[in-house]
Amino acid sequence: MENVTRLLLPDVAEALRNDPRSVVELTEELHPVDLADLCAELDDGLQLALVRALPVVDGARLLEALERQERVDLFGRLATAALDAAVDVAEAMAPDERADLFGELSEDTRTALLAKMERAESRDVQQLLAYPEDTAGALMTTNFVALSGEATCARAIEDVRRSAAEMETIYEAYAVDPHGTLLGVVSLRDLVLAKADKAIAEVMQPNVISVDVEADQEECARLIAKYDLLALPVMDRARRIVGIITVDDVVDVLQDEATEDAQKLGAVEPLEDSYFNTGFWALVKKRYKWLVILFVGGLFTGTAMKSFAGELRLVPALLLMVPLIISSGGNAGSQSASLMIRALAVGEVRPRDFARIVLRELAIGLALGVLLSVVGLGRVLLWPETRSTAFVLTVCSAIVGVVALGATVGAGLPLVLRRLGLDPAVSSTPFIASLVDVLGLVMYFELARLFLF
Amino acid sequence: MENVTRLLLPDVAEALRNDPRSVVELTEELHPVDLADLCAELDDGLQLALVRALPVVDGARLLEALERQERVDLFGRLATAALDAAVDVAEAMAPDERADLFGELSEDTRTALLAKMERAESRDVQQLLAYPEDTAGALMTTNFVALSGEATCARAIEDVRRSAAEMETIYEAYAVDPHGTLLGVVSLRDLVLAKADKAIAEVMQPNVISVDVEADQEECARLIAKYDLLALPVMDRARRIVGIITVDDVVDVLQDEATEDAQKLGAVEPLEDSYFNTGFWALVKKRYKWLVILFVGGLFTGTAMKSFAGELRLVPALLLMVPLIISSGGNAGSQSASLMIRALAVGEVRPRDFARIVLRELAIGLALGVLLSVVGLGRVLLWPETRSTAFVLTVCSAIVGVVALGATVGAGLPLVLRRLGLDPAVSSTPFIASLVDVLGLVMYFELARLFLF
Repeated sequence: MENVTRLLLPDVAEALRNDPRSVVELTEELHPVDLADLCAELDDGLQLALVRALPVVDGARLLEALERQERVDLFGRLATAALDAAVDVAEAMAPDERADLFGELSEDTRTALLAKMERAESRDVQQLLAYPEDTAGALMTTNFVALSGEATCARAIEDVRRSAAEMETIYEAYAVDPHGTLLGVVSLRDLVLAKADKAIAEVMQPNVISVDVEADQEECARLIAKYDLLALPVMDRARRIVGIITVDDVVDVLQDEATEDAQKLGAVEPLEDSYFNTGFWALVKKRYKWLVILFVGGLFTGTAMKSFAGELRLVPALLLMVPLIISSGGNAGSQSASLMIRALAVGEVRPRDFARIVLRELAIGLALGVLLSVVGLGRVLLWPETRSTAFVLTVCSAIVGVVALGATVGAGLPLVLRRLGLDPAVSSTPFIASLVDVLGLVMYFELARLFLF
Repeated sequence: MENVTRLLLPDVAEALRNDPRSVVELTEELHPVDLADLCAELDDGLQLALVRALPVVDGARLLEALERQERVDLFGRLATAALDAAVDVAEAMAPDERADLFGELSEDTRTALLAKMERAESRDVQQLLAYPEDTAGALMTTNFVALSGEATCARAIEDVRRSAAEMETIYEAYAVDPHGTLLGVVSLRDLVLAKADKAIAEVMQPNVISVDVEADQEECARLIAKYDLLALPVMDRARRIVGIITVDDVVDVLQDEATEDAQKLGAVEPLEDSYFNTGFWALVKKRYKWLVILFVGGLFTGTAMKSFAGELRLVPALLLMVPLIISSGGNAGSQSASLMIRALAVGEVRPRDFARIVLRELAIGLALGVLLSVVGLGRVLLWPETRSTAFVLTVCSAIVGVVALGATVGAGLPLVLRRLGLDPAVSSTPFIASLVDVLGLVMYFELARLFLF
């Protein structure tokens, strides 16, 4: 929470306890986002008092600005305490935020609310909820400015003015034919600059960048980022415009995806909420699965070492380099994986570049391996028990081999996963590191067999 | 590049070879971003022919849309071939993009261009270049709509109309007093909706969310994302508005920061360009430093193992669990680090939450460690050489201890780095994993001493 907002907290709590109505005047200068920050700090009863005291539209803005879990909790309590008030607030919410909220409510609450809502709004919620998560359909809002291609600019500005209150943005308007087919896009900038009697069809841009309703939300973000759009129209299969995705939604998507990718890279299942809003056991649950998978995978290092027990007994010094060698492979693998996962996310590389990338990473891995083996050589020569040509050969070739292996596996695996339609970020770097641990260990001991025995 | 654009490539190249002027008609329907994609595929000579054939404004849009390195190369060649043409294009570019470009040119080229440019534009470039990289000042554009607070809305719309061609956005305008001090913000939406004779002062929003010119670009991104802004005004110390940051710049910042963070998490120094545009040796250079640092750190695992050589000779089976135990600590550390680094990036946690977070992670680490030690127990009981109470105690307590250690170090280190004003993402997860490797190894052998000897 911004520090200035925090100062208001005691007064707001006091007002809600004594005379809830007075909170309206107290908070009317606050941005809805700041009010939401304040609200999150109040206890459950005062939160409910706050949303009930506010005018319906302000209550809707407050709910839109709350964090996911807090919003569901508060709205659920509002629906239980006063179903009619909840219906009013829901009707005043932005369609995309409302559909997200309804998707999280209990079946019973949702049914009760939908039955009481205006028919159009109720159907809107159900339609938006039908789109799969993380698609353009689930992200879009259905409130956008549609204009007839034949209208004049003056008439269009009048239309925009009249509908402005309900719209998320009025800066992009869409010219459509009577069937709703998209003809072109016209910005408010163009409308304001054009002569009043010009037809929309003359002012609009007919080549519209748009997405299919089933497109992935990352694709929507990529297009908005690439073309610097304020809004991206969403089309059904018949090329009718069914909604728009605004740039502020994409900013949220980008932040969320970056967080999810970082968490997956760190072998954590993505959290649904912020760190502090995720409970203790929820955090444990998000983390133990990958830890157990990696642990079970790690058991194979023990198996590998056991199968080389004979060699180890003869040359115990081999062991001293084990953690070092396998972690070098894992580190090189982490590097390649993190480069690939981001390059895939922003569309710089594609699975079809597989051969080119793997060859390049092999070459980079060999170069890095040679560099590291020079450092390793120094260490081997320092210890009396490892100071032999055979040992030097074993350690240096193992370092080169393991680093090259790590680089190719780390780069290749995310590409293969994407090709299979899976999320490349789940080949989290610890997973690649563990895989390379086992492979690297076997490589090291095999090289030792070759040179030392 | 989008596939439709690719189809035009042969025609564009052909036109540039035979009759460069004809390329104007051929490409006039293309979005500047798509034209930039096309341009990047042409060889150097044709790129130059393209930018010279286009009208000056289209040439400026093309340069704005090119990738960093390609832009510098092409503009540098244009300045060498025809300084006057380069001056014209530079004057038509958006101030923020132009300053970024000039910052990358050679000293000589920059001086030659600045000497020939209009005085106002030349000074604008020099002022923007004076702001440190990654600050609001370096990110902002100096073209924004400033209105007098006393003007009427009708007059303001006229002002907006007149200056629209030069402005990056006209959707947010800023009311200022005669000294340039910011009085409030008014959106084009408000202007269009308001009665024509109302004064700006009555329509504007006086509580403006703004940043200081020295603010970090991540702070700018955070504010625009949090408050769903289209533009964020940038103020100097005297509260005069000196520029604005638009949401499309922030979208780019968010993508770049996510990529940089992922690369740092993977122990790669951030690339300046895309993966394929970064040369072989440049990539090796971005990677070898961290690999060597981690390798040298890893040498201590050997030292630790050597100092427990006596114990290892007595109970060789201790070794079988070494890679497993240390990688579990590293994995738990990676998890905590990736959670913290993102939570810090989006402002969910602050360094002052240190004690609360470290205690929480310690508890989570203990819970995860107990879970993993149950799996580890199974393995210990399967191997005849490790099936003893003392061994079980050693391994299980080591797993719990190492995982808890990893979780606390992984969470704590990024917080400490941020507190020191350093970038928390450079405590890359491989670094934390390596640190925990050494600490975990010592812990394991000390526990073995306690229980087994």
